[in-house]
Amino acid sequence: MKAQFHSHFLLPADKIYMCGHSLGPPSKSASHQLHEGCNEWERLLVSGWNEADWFHLPKHLGEKIAPLIGALPHEVIVTDNTTTNLLKVLLAGLRLCRGRSVILAEKDNFPADLYMAQTAASFEKFTVQAVAGEDIYHAMNDKVGVLLITHVNYRTSYQHDIVAITAKAKALGIIVIWDFSHSIGILPLDCQRFDIDFAVGCTYKYLNGGPGSPSFLYVNEKYHETLRSPLAGWMGHIAPFAFSSVYEPAKDVTSFLTGTPGILSMKALEGALEIFKHVDLSALREESKALTTLLIEKCAQELPELHCVSPLSAKERGGHVAFLHPHAFAISRAMIEEGIIIDYREPNLLRFGFSPLYIDSQDIRKCVTSLKNILHSNLYKKDCFSQRKEVT
Amino acid sequence: MKAQFHSHFLLPADKIYMCGHSLGPPSKSASHQLHEGCNEWERLLVSGWNEADWFHLPKHLGEKIAPLIGALPHEVIVTDNTTTNLLKVLLAGLRLCRGRSVILAEKDNFPADLYMAQTAASFEKFTVQAVAGEDIYHAMNDKVGVLLITHVNYRTSYQHDIVAITAKAKALGIIVIWDFSHSIGILPLDCQRFDIDFAVGCTYKYLNGGPGSPSFLYVNEKYHETLRSPLAGWMGHIAPFAFSSVYEPAKDVTSFLTGTPGILSMKALEGALEIFKHVDLSALREESKALTTLLIEKCAQELPELHCVSPLSAKERGGHVAFLHPHAFAISRAMIEEGIIIDYREPNLLRFGFSPLYIDSQDIRKCVTSLKNILHSNLYKKDCFSQRKEVT
Repeated sequence: MKAQFHSHFLLPADKIYMCGHSLGPPSKSASHQLHEGCNEWERLLVSGWNEADWFHLPKHLGEKIAPLIGALPHEVIVTDNTTTNLLKVLLAGLRLCRGRSVILAEKDNFPADLYMAQTAASFEKFTVQAVAGEDIYHAMNDKVGVLLITHVNYRTSYQHDIVAITAKAKALGIIVIWDFSHSIGILPLDCQRFDIDFAVGCTYKYLNGGPGSPSFLYVNEKYHETLRSPLAGWMGHIAPFAFSSVYEPAKDVTSFLTGTPGILSMKALEGALEIFKHVDLSALREESKALTTLLIEKCAQELPELHCVSPLSAKERGGHVAFLHPHAFAISRAMIEEGIIIDYREPNLLRFGFSPLYIDSQDIRKCVTSLKNILHSNLYKKDCFSQRKEVT
Repeated sequence: MKAQFHSHFLLPADKIYMCGHSLGPPSKSASHQLHEGCNEWERLLVSGWNEADWFHLPKHLGEKIAPLIGALPHEVIVTDNTTTNLLKVLLAGLRLCRGRSVILAEKDNFPADLYMAQTAASFEKFTVQAVAGEDIYHAMNDKVGVLLITHVNYRTSYQHDIVAITAKAKALGIIVIWDFSHSIGILPLDCQRFDIDFAVGCTYKYLNGGPGSPSFLYVNEKYHETLRSPLAGWMGHIAPFAFSSVYEPAKDVTSFLTGTPGILSMKALEGALEIFKHVDLSALREESKALTTLLIEKCAQELPELHCVSPLSAKERGGHVAFLHPHAFAISRAMIEEGIIIDYREPNLLRFGFSPLYIDSQDIRKCVTSLKNILHSNLYKKDCFSQRKEVT
């Protein structure tokens, strides 16, 4: 796929970019639309809200994201960040299951999800039960009102069985919220088929929407008529420009909007999503599996000192691969110095995350060769690579 | 001031822009910084979080906004939108006054504020008492826990007496939240002097941050050590990159951050704020008063059919002037056709909002001349001006 898509990205020719799981690279279309947004502001001034239709951008971007998660176009909006969207769907979910008392969560989930589970639980007098990922399935019972679960783990890349977990939750009357931050744009998803209740996720990872691009929020249409948004946002009113003092929510997913959306960040995302019109997500997934498998196998053969913590079975993995090494930080700095951008997480984790849109098997081989040079020459032990800075 | 500052803005030469109270115009520095943000993403990729210090942008922008509201640099952050920030400070305020039962609000406030007051009240089992603006002062009593009040009214431009209201609230132990959406950047504010508890506001009006640019949030430093953020956002953690499953808030205003901030929108705001380094807010306010007075007086003389609903006393007005006319919508369209961008609000309100940074007395005179032509020639009765579109 790289042959077809690499030229759409603004990636330096001398770099191999393997941090797409953290921040996707800019594309020409994202850059173009960002500049277009600035031009609209200059040309149209306040009338841009109507004439450039900024007002409906949260909905229009939702329509573009819907096919990537197998949702109906009117089930998705783009708004706020994932933390705020988590709060909204958690509170909405909890209000659908009064009489129950537990939010079930995964203790190794990204902290933002756990913190918001605790926040929502405190508002609605629930408790959070955080269990290991492998225990989620068996921990579901009729006390659990809401299950908050991230599809692909941010550290290990372990991918939960969405079919089995959703089916069991539904059988037990549990509302399921899927966080697709680490899955959207790198593998196909199907909210409709599994009748998923709620989902949220980032757009700045494999969707390449730009630093801090706004999050998406999906609400199954079966709730649209009756569900009241837990945060009565002005932009979620059925008629915001009536300026009524009485809140009446829109009767669709737009009721989950809060205040005025950040148009310029949204314009970059709009451009980034252009590319996905031409991407076959099933083919992308197959190539992603092949590339992550190649990376794992070559490291197993040539670098046994790296301990792979990602699942060895491709179908259980997301889009990145993670290895443990006691000198992970210095290795990551040395790799970056070589032009291979990888990612470090405390205390000893190396992550390699990428999309086949801009990485191919030749890049993987170069990456392993560099890793081998750095490890076997002890290059990473140079002082310059051990100096710590805060790393995001 | 226009002579000094107009050239900093990207305003069309043939337009007089009087919607700065809704969306401020783009400046060269805002456009420049937005493009710079895009360049940083391209050049630095994920390392932009450290190397371009995107990570601290919410705090750095807060430091730039602090002098505009008379706050200490570490008392302000830029994050989310005003609706979400209102929710955070409302919940924080309510938790400081347990035992009380009422949120006092102004019934003619912008609806977003009222909706969030209702949302926060429902979480914390308070009730919202919404009274007319002129009754706020006398409605304060020892049942009121939090007063939510917007300094300058979005319709009438009426400016509340911040000194008297804050002083009475403090004497009664009421937490005051000021919404400065319609005052920041057009008049001087002084959070420190009046010992204000919390404040929020928009940055896309008189600060010219761009469509939907993020909101600011001020928390008086006396609360920093003890106050727990009501939304446990990951970015508000004392050490986000420790990825701890236990939430521990930062011991300053950054605990009010939620998730990953929209950097590109923030970069435009960063550029827009450059201009305010060189603005004397007291001088700006004096000129704003003179210009709005000129507009009101000329209209009173020449266009008695326009009914001014803004205070006639300059010191009671904010930065815009509003008039009633039964054909307000068609008049606004006809004015826009003449290159004078004014604003219409249902059902019959015309608003003229502008900053002396880009409007001078000559513009005001031209505006009144155009208004007179349009009204006296019945030009606004042409069919083309009565066709309604949704107007933001």
